[in-house]
Amino acid sequence: MSRLLYRSCLRGLPQRAVLTHNARTFATSAPRSQFDWQDPLMSKSLLTSDELAISETAERYCQEQLLPRVLQAYRDEHYDAHILREMGELGLLGATIEGYGCAGVSTVAGGLITRAVERVDSGYRSGMSVQSSLVMGGIYEFGSAEQKERYLPGMAKGEIIGAFGLTEPNHGSDPGSMETMARPHPQKKGYYVLSGAKTWITNSPIADVLLVWAKLQETGKIRGFLVERKNCPAGTLETPAIKNKNGLRASITGMIQLEDCPVPHENMFPEVEGLKGPFSCLNSARYGIALGIMGALEDCISRARTYALERKQFKGNPLAKYQLVQKKLADATTDAAYGTLAAIQVGRLKDQGKATPEMISMIKRQNCDRALYNARVLQEIFGGNAVSDEYGIGRHVANLYVTQTYEGQSDIHSLILGRAITGVQAFV
Amino acid sequence: MSRLLYRSCLRGLPQRAVLTHNARTFATSAPRSQFDWQDPLMSKSLLTSDELAISETAERYCQEQLLPRVLQAYRDEHYDAHILREMGELGLLGATIEGYGCAGVSTVAGGLITRAVERVDSGYRSGMSVQSSLVMGGIYEFGSAEQKERYLPGMAKGEIIGAFGLTEPNHGSDPGSMETMARPHPQKKGYYVLSGAKTWITNSPIADVLLVWAKLQETGKIRGFLVERKNCPAGTLETPAIKNKNGLRASITGMIQLEDCPVPHENMFPEVEGLKGPFSCLNSARYGIALGIMGALEDCISRARTYALERKQFKGNPLAKYQLVQKKLADATTDAAYGTLAAIQVGRLKDQGKATPEMISMIKRQNCDRALYNARVLQEIFGGNAVSDEYGIGRHVANLYVTQTYEGQSDIHSLILGRAITGVQAFV
Amino acid sequence: MSRLLYRSCLRGLPQRAVLTHNARTFATSAPRSQFDWQDPLMSKSLLTSDELAISETAERYCQEQLLPRVLQAYRDEHYDAHILREMGELGLLGATIEGYGCAGVSTVAGGLITRAVERVDSGYRSGMSVQSSLVMGGIYEFGSAEQKERYLPGMAKGEIIGAFGLTEPNHGSDPGSMETMARPHPQKKGYYVLSGAKTWITNSPIADVLLVWAKLQETGKIRGFLVERKNCPAGTLETPAIKNKNGLRASITGMIQLEDCPVPHENMFPEVEGLKGPFSCLNSARYGIALGIMGALEDCISRARTYALERKQFKGNPLAKYQLVQKKLADATTDAAYGTLAAIQVGRLKDQGKATPEMISMIKRQNCDRALYNARVLQEIFGGNAVSDEYGIGRHVANLYVTQTYEGQSDIHSLILGRAITGVQAFV
Amino acid sequence: MSRLLYRSCLRGLPQRAVLTHNARTFATSAPRSQFDWQDPLMSKSLLTSDELAISETAERYCQEQLLPRVLQAYRDEHYDAHILREMGELGLLGATIEGYGCAGVSTVAGGLITRAVERVDSGYRSGMSVQSSLVMGGIYEFGSAEQKERYLPGMAKGEIIGAFGLTEPNHGSDPGSMETMARPHPQKKGYYVLSGAKTWITNSPIADVLLVWAKLQETGKIRGFLVERKNCPAGTLETPAIKNKNGLRASITGMIQLEDCPVPHENMFPEVEGLKGPFSCLNSARYGIALGIMGALEDCISRARTYALERKQFKGNPLAKYQLVQKKLADATTDAAYGTLAAIQVGRLKDQGKATPEMISMIKRQNCDRALYNARVLQEIFGGNAVSDEYGIGRHVANLYVTQTYEGQSDIHSLILGRAITGVQAFV
Repeated sequence: MSRLLYRSCLRGLPQRAVLTHNARTFATSAPRSQFDWQDPLMSKSLLTSDELAISETAERYCQEQLLPRVLQAYRDEHYDAHILREMGELGLLGATIEGYGCAGVSTVAGGLITRAVERVDSGYRSGMSVQSSLVMGGIYEFGSAEQKERYLPGMAKGEIIGAFGLTEPNHGSDPGSMETMARPHPQKKGYYVLSGAKTWITNSPIADVLLVWAKLQETGKIRGFLVERKNCPAGTLETPAIKNKNGLRASITGMIQLEDCPVPHENMFPEVEGLKGPFSCLNSARYGIALGIMGALEDCISRARTYALERKQFKGNPLAKYQLVQKKLADATTDAAYGTLAAIQVGRLKDQGKATPEMISMIKRQNCDRALYNARVLQEIFGGNAVSDEYGIGRHVANLYVTQTYEGQSDIHSLILGRAITGVQAFV
Repeated sequence: MSRLLYRSCLRGLPQRAVLTHNARTFATSAPRSQFDWQDPLMSKSLLTSDELAISETAERYCQEQLLPRVLQAYRDEHYDAHILREMGELGLLGATIEGYGCAGVSTVAGGLITRAVERVDSGYRSGMSVQSSLVMGGIYEFGSAEQKERYLPGMAKGEIIGAFGLTEPNHGSDPGSMETMARPHPQKKGYYVLSGAKTWITNSPIADVLLVWAKLQETGKIRGFLVERKNCPAGTLETPAIKNKNGLRASITGMIQLEDCPVPHENMFPEVEGLKGPFSCLNSARYGIALGIMGALEDCISRARTYALERKQFKGNPLAKYQLVQKKLADATTDAAYGTLAAIQVGRLKDQGKATPEMISMIKRQNCDRALYNARVLQEIFGGNAVSDEYGIGRHVANLYVTQTYEGQSDIHSLILGRAITGVQAFV
Repeated sequence: MSRLLYRSCLRGLPQRAVLTHNARTFATSAPRSQFDWQDPLMSKSLLTSDELAISETAERYCQEQLLPRVLQAYRDEHYDAHILREMGELGLLGATIEGYGCAGVSTVAGGLITRAVERVDSGYRSGMSVQSSLVMGGIYEFGSAEQKERYLPGMAKGEIIGAFGLTEPNHGSDPGSMETMARPHPQKKGYYVLSGAKTWITNSPIADVLLVWAKLQETGKIRGFLVERKNCPAGTLETPAIKNKNGLRASITGMIQLEDCPVPHENMFPEVEGLKGPFSCLNSARYGIALGIMGALEDCISRARTYALERKQFKGNPLAKYQLVQKKLADATTDAAYGTLAAIQVGRLKDQGKATPEMISMIKRQNCDRALYNARVLQEIFGGNAVSDEYGIGRHVANLYVTQTYEGQSDIHSLILGRAITGVQAFV
Repeated sequence: MSRLLYRSCLRGLPQRAVLTHNARTFATSAPRSQFDWQDPLMSKSLLTSDELAISETAERYCQEQLLPRVLQAYRDEHYDAHILREMGELGLLGATIEGYGCAGVSTVAGGLITRAVERVDSGYRSGMSVQSSLVMGGIYEFGSAEQKERYLPGMAKGEIIGAFGLTEPNHGSDPGSMETMARPHPQKKGYYVLSGAKTWITNSPIADVLLVWAKLQETGKIRGFLVERKNCPAGTLETPAIKNKNGLRASITGMIQLEDCPVPHENMFPEVEGLKGPFSCLNSARYGIALGIMGALEDCISRARTYALERKQFKGNPLAKYQLVQKKLADATTDAAYGTLAAIQVGRLKDQGKATPEMISMIKRQNCDRALYNARVLQEIFGGNAVSDEYGIGRHVANLYVTQTYEGQSDIHSLILGRAITGVQAFV
C-alpha cells in the first residue's frame, strides 16, 4: 500500500484541533541525535518511509478515534463492532495480505498497526488480530481460491467479522487433545456436522464466519472449517458471550457451541491437516502481539512519566526526582526499546522466509512478560491513584495479564524454547 | 473475650449443611507432626486457645456469610453496610479494645480476625479495618472519656459507621503537608469550621462519624476532629463515592469535602497534636493489614492448588505435576508461612509495648509485597481461565495492588526502614 | 549447659582490648523499645537466657578468634584443623547432644552457634556442621552404645575429626542411586569391604573417622559405616583434597575413594536402613544451615551499612543517603529478620518432636536463597571496591552460592515442598 | 580490513587438531531456517561478510589461544602481557581506528572482537578494551598529530601497553570530584608535575603509557596527560598491582600513584577539557563491553546446556529434561539474543554519528545486568559442581559482577537514563 493511499485514507478522518498528548508526541519525532525516551534505540531508523507512514496513520486513527471510547467501553464490557469497519476503511485489516483489497504491507508494518492499536488497548488489538491474523491470515494461507474470494474482501472492509475457534474448555495449552469432531452428515450429502465447544474466543458473539478447528472423524486429523453463522440452522451454533472478565473488557469474548452443525465440504480448508494449520495462524498472530504489546508498554511509560513529572510530594519535588521512580522508568524504557528491536528483526526474517516458530515464541513470551512486569512496576508510581480507572494504567495492567497467557502461556513458550535449545521435551 | 462468648455468638448463625471447601479445610487442622500446607511452620502452635477459638469463629462467619456475597458485590461495586452489623454482633469490631462492649482480645487475635475477613476479600477487610483500627482505635487512644462513651459502644455493634479522613488529593504519601484547616467559627462560639478535601476514604459515603485530621489555624498543628454527619448543615459536608475502581470494589470509597463545616470544640481530640495521632492509628491498622493480607495470599494458594490438581493438560497430567507449577506453590507457601510468623511476633511485642513503628512498616511492606507478588505468580497457573472472575484469583490480585499502596506505599516504607537502619533520611 | 559453664569457657580466651566492630555491636543490645537494625523484629525476645549466653560466647569466640584468620585462610584455601579443637574447648561441637561431654543445649541454641560461626564464614560453619550435625548427630541417633562411647567424647573435644560420605560424583541430588557397595570381606570374617567414591566431602582430607553410606550387597539397602582412617590398610582409603574452589575456600573439601576397604561389622550402624539414616542427619545439618546462614547475611548487612555510611559520592553525601541504597538495605534486613524468626520457630518445633523434614526444606531453601540474593544486592553498594577481598562481601557472596546448592539444591527443595503441598511428585 | 587479511592472519596460527567444543560450535553455523540456540534471532543476518570474517578470526584465536591459558591464569592472578602482542598481530587492537596500522573496521566489528575475547574471559577483554578503546581511542580522538604518530602504531602492535587513569580511591562514580592535580613544574619549563592517585586501573602495573586525567591547577579543568613510564624519574610514578581480587583475575589491575611526576606540555591532549574527554573514551569502551559481555553470557549458556545434557539424575534423565532447567536456559538465551540485537543497532547508529551516550548507558547497563543475572541462574544448573573452577561458570559469574560495576555502575546508569527520560536529575 502506498504512502499516498494512507494519506488519502486519513483525509476522511475528522481533524481535531487538540490531539491527546500521545498523539502529539508520536507525531513529532525528536531530532536525530538526541536521546528520545519514546524510541531510545532509534528503531525508527530501521523502518521504511512507507512503514513510517502506515504507523503514523494508524497511530493517528487510534489516538483520535479509539482512545476517546476506551474508558467507557472497558467499564461496560462493550465492544463496538463498528471499529472493525473503521479499521477496514483505513486499510488496517489483513494488511499484510496481497490482493483481495488488502494493503500488502510488510510484516513489520503489520506489527506497527497492532502497536498503534495496542497503545490504546490490548482488547481492541485482540479484536483486530483475530480478524487479521487468525482468520484472514488462515484463509489466505490455507483456503481454497473460492474461500479467499468469498471472505477476504468483505473481511478486509470489516463487513464480515471473523472468529477463530481452537481452544477448548479442557485443553487450553494442549490443543492436540481437542474433542470437537466433524462427522459426515447423516442425511445431507456433501456436508459435515460439527459438534463440540470452544471457549475464550474473541469476537465469537458477533462473528459472521467462525474458523473452527475440529477433528475429522474419518481420519482423526485436525481440519479447519469455515462456519457461516447465517447458514447454521437454529440450535446448531451458539456463541454466548463471557462476561465479567478481569481484563480485555473492551474486546468481546465468548464460547462457540456446536451441536450437529452442518457445514458444506467446500467450507473445509482443502489441504492442511493437523496442528500445522492453527499453529501457522497463531504464529502470525503472535508476531502481531509481540510488536503490538510494546504499544501498551510504551503507553504505560508515557502515562507514568507524565504523572511523575506532575505529581509533587515532599517539599514540592516531582516524583520524577526520586531515584526509586527513575529506576522504574529506566527499566521499562529499556525493555520497550529492546523488545521493539527484536520484533522488527523477526519481522524482517519472516518476510525473508527465515523466521522459525521458536523465534516467535521467544519474542511473544519475552515482550509480553516484560510488558506486564514493567506495567505493574510503573503502576506503583501512581500510588493509590492507580485505583481510579481514569489513569488508564490499571487497565493496561489487567489487559497485559491476559496477553501473557493467551496464544501460548508464558511457561509453555519457555518449554518450547527449552526444547529447541536442548532437543529434549519437558511438557510431560 | 472468652471462648464461650465466641461459641455462643456462633450459635446465632445459620448452620449451612454444605460449607465451601475453604471453610472445611480451616475447620479441621492437620495432625500435629505432618506437614500442613495451610500452616507449614505450625504458626497455630503460637496461639492461645482463645485466639484459636476467635479465629475459628471469624473464619466460619466469613466463609459462610461473606464469601457467597463477594462475587456479585465486586462486580457491582456494592458494599453492604449490614456487614458491619453482622461483624458487630459477633464481637469482631474494635476487638482489641477493652470495655465499651468490645472484646478486649490480644493484638494477634485482632489480626486473626482481619485475616479471616481478608481470606474472602481485602475490600471487606478494609471496611472493617477503618471501623476498628482507624476510627475506634483512634477514639480509644486519643478521645476524651465522653467521646469514647458516645461513639465506641455503637461502633462496636456496627450501628455507627466510621471513616478516617487523612489523605488529601495532593498529599498522598506526605500527610504533613495537608491543607484541610480548622478555624474558629466566625459566629458560633465553641465551634470550629473545617474546610478542605480528603480522598480515597474507605466508608466515607456511608459513614456516620468521620474522624477528620486538619490543621488548627491558631497553632498550625494537626488535630483530630469527630465530624458527625447528622449534625452537619446542608452543603458543609459532601462524601461522594469514587466509582469505577480497579480494585477493592467490594468496599466503598469516597471523598470528604468540607466547606465551613461546623464542629463543636468537644469533638476535637483533647490532647494529641501533629502527625503522632494519625500515625498511631495507622500503626494499628497496618498491623491488621500485615496479618490480614496473609489470608488473601492463603486463599490464592488454596485456589491455585485446587485448580492445579483438577486441571489436566498433556496426557492427563494435573498441572500440579509440572515443576514450574510446583515452584510457584512452594514460593507462595513459604512467604505465607514466614509472613504469618513475623506478624505474630510483632503482635506479641505490641502487646508488651515493645513494637516500634518501623517493625510495623517492615511487616506491612513485606507481607503486602509478597502477597501481591505471589498472587500474581499463582494467577499464572490458571492461564486464560483467570480472566473469568469466578475463579476469584483475579479479584485478589487486583485488591492486593491496592493494599500494597495504601497506608504507606511500599517504597515509602522502604525509606522509613532505610532511615531507621542508617540514621539518614532519603525522602527528599 | 549452664550459663556459668559458657562464661567459664570464655575465661580461657585471650581478652583483646579492641574488638572488631561486629563483636562490639553484638555484645551491646539496643534498648528495648527502639528499632534495632541488627534484630529488627526482636528475635532475642524469643530466646532463653541460656541461649543468649551461648550465643554471646560463640559470637565472641568467632569475632575474636576466627575473624582475624579468615581472610588469609580463604586466599590460601587453608583450613586450620585446630579450629575444631578450640570449638571443642568451648563446648560448641555436638552441642545439642546430651551426655558424652556434650552441652545438651536446645536446637535453637545449636543454631545460634552456627550463626555465630557463619557470621565469620560459611566455610568455618561447614566444617563445624559436618562434625556436629552430620557425624556426631548421626552416631548419636543411629550408633550403637559402643560407637557412641568410642567416638562422641573425642569428637566433642575436636580431637577426632569426622567426615560424612553420602554424595557421589554421579548422584548429587539423588543419593538413592548411590554405587558405593559394602560386601562381605572375602577372607576376613566379621568384616565388610567397601568400594566406591564420594565427592564434595567437607573435612575428608583431615578426617579421622568417615561416616560412609554404602549399599550392603546382601540386601541392596543403604547402611552407615564408620570408617576409621588409622585402621585402613594402605591403598584402601584415599581422601584427596579438591582445590581451586570458587567458594567455601576456608573449609577443606575432598573426595573419599574406597577400594576394598575393610570395615569391621561393629562399625556399621546397627539398625538404620535406607535413606532414612542419611536424611535424618541432613535434616539436623540443614537446620543448622537455615539459622546459621542468617549470620552471613547479617554480616553482609553490617558491612554494607558501614560502607554506605562512610563512602561519600556526589557532593559529599554518604551512599546511605541514596534511595536505591536504602532499598537494598531495607530488603536485606527484612529477609534476615523473617528468616531468623522462621528458624527459631522450627527449632522449637524440633525440640517438641513436631518438625517435619518439609519444614526444614522450607527454611533451608528460603534462608539460603534470600541470603544469597541479598548478599549479591548488597555487594552492589560497594561498587568496584567489592572486588577487593578485604571488604569481605565478595567472600560471603561466593560462599553463599555453595550453601544454596549443598544439602539439597534450592530447586530440589522446591520440588520437595511442591510434593508436600500437592501430593504429586515432579522429580521425574 | 578485508576478509582476506583476516584469513591470512589466521594462517599464522597453530592449527590444533582438537578444538574445544566452543570453537567447533562457533565454526559451523546452523542452516538458515532452523532455530539456532547460539543465535536465536539470527543476528548474523545483520552483519556484513567482512564482519563475519573478523568475528570468525577473533573467535578462532580466542578459542585456540586464549581458552587454554585462562584457567591457570585466573587461579594465579596472572596476566600474560604477550597476549596483547598476539592480538596486535591479528589486527585486533584499536581495530575501529583508521590508519596508524589499525584495521579501520566498523564499530560492530570492533564489538564482535570484544565478544570473542569475552567469550573466553572478561578479564582478557578488559585488558584489550583498555588498550583499544580507552587509550588508543582517546589518543585517536583527542591527541595531537604527533601524539597519534608516536603511540598508535606501537599500541596497535601490542608493543606499547596503555592504561587509563580516571577513577580515584574516593571518587568512583563521581569523577568530576577528582583530586589529581597538574601544576606547572616549579623548575622545568615546558613541564607540568602531576600528583594524585588512581585506583582499579587495568594494566597499570605493566603499562608503558598511562593516560592520566588530572585537573590543571591554572584552570581547574580536567585535562588528559600521556605519562610515559620510561621518562618518569624514580619515585614519581608507582603502579602497584592490586592482588587477591574476587573477579577478573586473568587481568592485571593496579593503582597509579603520582608524586610530582614531570610530564612535558606536549604530552597533554591539546584541546579537550572537562569530563567530555574521559566520558567520550568511556563511551567507546562501554560499547565494547555491551556487545562483548554477550560473549560471556553465551559461553555460560553453552556450558550449562552441555552440562544439562550430559548430567543425569533421577532415573537417568538428563537435567535438560527438567522444566526448571529449561526455563533457565530459555531466559538466558532470550536475553543473549535481545542484547546482541540492541548492541548491533547502537553500533550502526554510532557509525552514523547518531548514537547518544544514553543509548550506550542503556545497552551497557542492560547487557551487563542480564549477563550477570543469567550467569548466576545458569550456575545453579551445575549444583555443587560449579564450585570447581574447571566448569568455568563460576569464573564468568565472578567476572560479570565486576563488569556490572565498572565503567558506570548499574544504578548510576539507571540515573543517567532516568535523567534523560524525565529531564530531572536524581544523583543528589
